[in-house]
Amino acid sequence: MTASEIASAVVRGKMSALDATEAALARIKQHDGVLNSFTDVTADRARTKARAVDADIAAGKTVGPLAGVPFAVKNLFDVAGLPTRAGSKINRDLAPSKRDATLIERMEAAGAVLVGALNMGEYAYDFTGENIHDGPSRNPHDTTRMAGGSSGGSGSAVGGALVPIALGSDTNGSIRVPSSFCGIFGLKPTYGRLSRARSFPFVASLDHLGPFARSVTDLALAYDAMQGPDADDAACTTTRGLEPTLPLLANPVSDLRIAIAGGYFQKNVFPEAVEAVSRVVKALGATKVVDVPEAARARAAAYVITTTEGASLHLDRLRKRPNDFDPAVRDRLIAGAMVPAPLVDRAQKFRRWYRAQFAEIFKSVDVLIAPATPCTAPKLGQVNFNLDGVDLPVRANIGIHTQPISFIGLPVVAVPVPLEPLPIGVQIIAAPWREDIALRVAHALEKMGVVAAPSPKGF
Amino acid sequence: MTASEIASAVVRGKMSALDATEAALARIKQHDGVLNSFTDVTADRARTKARAVDADIAAGKTVGPLAGVPFAVKNLFDVAGLPTRAGSKINRDLAPSKRDATLIERMEAAGAVLVGALNMGEYAYDFTGENIHDGPSRNPHDTTRMAGGSSGGSGSAVGGALVPIALGSDTNGSIRVPSSFCGIFGLKPTYGRLSRARSFPFVASLDHLGPFARSVTDLALAYDAMQGPDADDAACTTTRGLEPTLPLLANPVSDLRIAIAGGYFQKNVFPEAVEAVSRVVKALGATKVVDVPEAARARAAAYVITTTEGASLHLDRLRKRPNDFDPAVRDRLIAGAMVPAPLVDRAQKFRRWYRAQFAEIFKSVDVLIAPATPCTAPKLGQVNFNLDGVDLPVRANIGIHTQPISFIGLPVVAVPVPLEPLPIGVQIIAAPWREDIALRVAHALEKMGVVAAPSPKGF
Repeated sequence: MTASEIASAVVRGKMSALDATEAALARIKQHDGVLNSFTDVTADRARTKARAVDADIAAGKTVGPLAGVPFAVKNLFDVAGLPTRAGSKINRDLAPSKRDATLIERMEAAGAVLVGALNMGEYAYDFTGENIHDGPSRNPHDTTRMAGGSSGGSGSAVGGALVPIALGSDTNGSIRVPSSFCGIFGLKPTYGRLSRARSFPFVASLDHLGPFARSVTDLALAYDAMQGPDADDAACTTTRGLEPTLPLLANPVSDLRIAIAGGYFQKNVFPEAVEAVSRVVKALGATKVVDVPEAARARAAAYVITTTEGASLHLDRLRKRPNDFDPAVRDRLIAGAMVPAPLVDRAQKFRRWYRAQFAEIFKSVDVLIAPATPCTAPKLGQVNFNLDGVDLPVRANIGIHTQPISFIGLPVVAVPVPLEPLPIGVQIIAAPWREDIALRVAHALEKMGVVAAPSPKGF
Repeated sequence: MTASEIASAVVRGKMSALDATEAALARIKQHDGVLNSFTDVTADRARTKARAVDADIAAGKTVGPLAGVPFAVKNLFDVAGLPTRAGSKINRDLAPSKRDATLIERMEAAGAVLVGALNMGEYAYDFTGENIHDGPSRNPHDTTRMAGGSSGGSGSAVGGALVPIALGSDTNGSIRVPSSFCGIFGLKPTYGRLSRARSFPFVASLDHLGPFARSVTDLALAYDAMQGPDADDAACTTTRGLEPTLPLLANPVSDLRIAIAGGYFQKNVFPEAVEAVSRVVKALGATKVVDVPEAARARAAAYVITTTEGASLHLDRLRKRPNDFDPAVRDRLIAGAMVPAPLVDRAQKFRRWYRAQFAEIFKSVDVLIAPATPCTAPKLGQVNFNLDGVDLPVRANIGIHTQPISFIGLPVVAVPVPLEPLPIGVQIIAAPWREDIALRVAHALEKMGVVAAPSPKGF
């Protein structure tokens, strides 16, 4: 059942919130041994919350649009009573959080029921969903394959239909990559749109939080419940374009100027990515190709900023507990600790220039279409893949098409094209603060049957 | 004659703008061979402008409050027809500027007459006013001593009464230090207050432009002529607290809460700095001492940001023309090119914390008093001085009291205490956008005879 189906049934008394919660807990119990998407199941808390929702309904009180909907969060969100491990071993020594992350509070205020915390790459610095401490999240369509990262548990849990909604984070692609590999919808909102208060950070100027779901309606439901400024996140202040997106989904998209991201975004792709983009483009009748200038440089700049700010964040831990890191993450951070500062200054200056290029593009275009990942999910442990004739490390290059977009904080809905044998995602990219447009286009594609979350068939 | 005396005489027909200009040109011709404050004298341009002012007056047109006032600018301001050398050899190969800097345009719109461009430390990276290419600017009270830097020519020209007003820049102290050594008034405005459009930059987040003068009235006159947003400088947008300060100067200061900057700002001082601060404090009846937390760290952070952003700015020149740099500047920039980026990230994060501390302080205080320099002007070429028992390099440490203030962009008026044998400055520091308050306090001190620009006696 989707989130909207559950909420609708709960509100109309067809199903209790507790039953919906128990169903999710049962499904987690049955399948998560294979998927490995959860690191914590908050069963007691979930039952308490579900009973409270049921009591409100019994008392005739108004309940929110997510009444009784089970959801889970990447384990970098603060959950009261749990240490916020952020995929690490080191953070497990932290004191348990005293208060939930803002986004959890907003989801629960809308009636949703938190059922647990989800596996992720250590400190969110990966695209694979692999984790040396907790083991890898597994792809629900083929459990020998990657779920994608760093929000691997989020992708795996929603792709495996353990929960209808999960929350994750995206610094360079960590929502869009697992969406693509796991065949689900993911929203990386505009930078500054959704509060990051009480979540474990990675790169302040690149970090975004956002939802995953199995339908655009559910994605919009979750997004609408979480929208709005938050005094606890200095970047989350705007009220620009703040409005419920759910009522807008049915609006036609024929008035939108939809273009294909050209150049860089048409390179570095496997045939399945070409096929996926082509289906989306054809369905939307898009023909215009817009060349995005200097996208490769944007990705390099995003990496320079990521690795150095990440190193700054983790410097004390690198000094004191180097051996408690996931080696794959530690070595990237140590490299970042030694990058000369002028490179970062130049990356930031370039960033302003690049943002201005996109501002120009969005004068004549409403939506850009680009691949979400170069390929479908690689095998777990796979080290290299061949991109346009060059052998490249998988780990660093899965985000090749996502990084140049998040670098300047554009809103993106990743939509799943249900190819066989494995699904793959496409990015629907809009101008800042226009999540509504990206969601509308995703919904139109869903109605046309071009995109959909396939049923998990890997377990 | 002060600027206001000149303007008043010119407007009332007692003196022509051309005569005022010729007097300045003659004085420059007579004394600048010793002071070495000018690198370019724009005599033709000045005469043309002065004649235009005189023609306007003859035609009964309204002229501005700086009618006929000669002024000069640090040679990092664009002056149409000159390459903007910024104290360097390398920049002399640049094409001549096509348009004046915004602040020159605004000064001339108020009737002022540009008479030339002024000597400075290479690329503004010094506190001494020494320059290997152009020779040092000399102190007008003792020409064997430093004028201070990096706006050394500005200090020397105004201190030597060659012009009543000069413009300079201040990244870490480059207006306040020459003000102190040369015994004149200098205004480093709030970060973002005065446009930097068409000036040669150093560190984007620390660069300020501002005026020097021999009286507070002249300083306010120049500042008022230059105030206001400018679309050509992304940082210069606010209209907060924008109002002419000249009419406010006579307001009493008895209502202001004036405090002494304690801790760090009472250390690292020679007796003359203690005496100067003490005179100012006594005249104002200030007794409260406010301890500014972590000022030493603020200075370190300012240096980390300065050296790395400076290195980023000059990286291509360092690679291509290392031997054309002033060696003292080159070596600092090369060091900056190798500073690991996480240090800068941490410096920026600390900066936010430090800014918040000052916001707290300014809830209960209107003005802070601190030394402008630890000592009066050192000898030219002097390498070390002894601060609190430690031998330290002069070049890097003259700004020890200015850097922690400009680091967060606070407005400061440097006021000259006319000690014998050499003057020394004191910083009058106000909250952001409150230049008016700092100017009022400076004016009150001037009226009390505690601060004044001494007549040059060195030549």
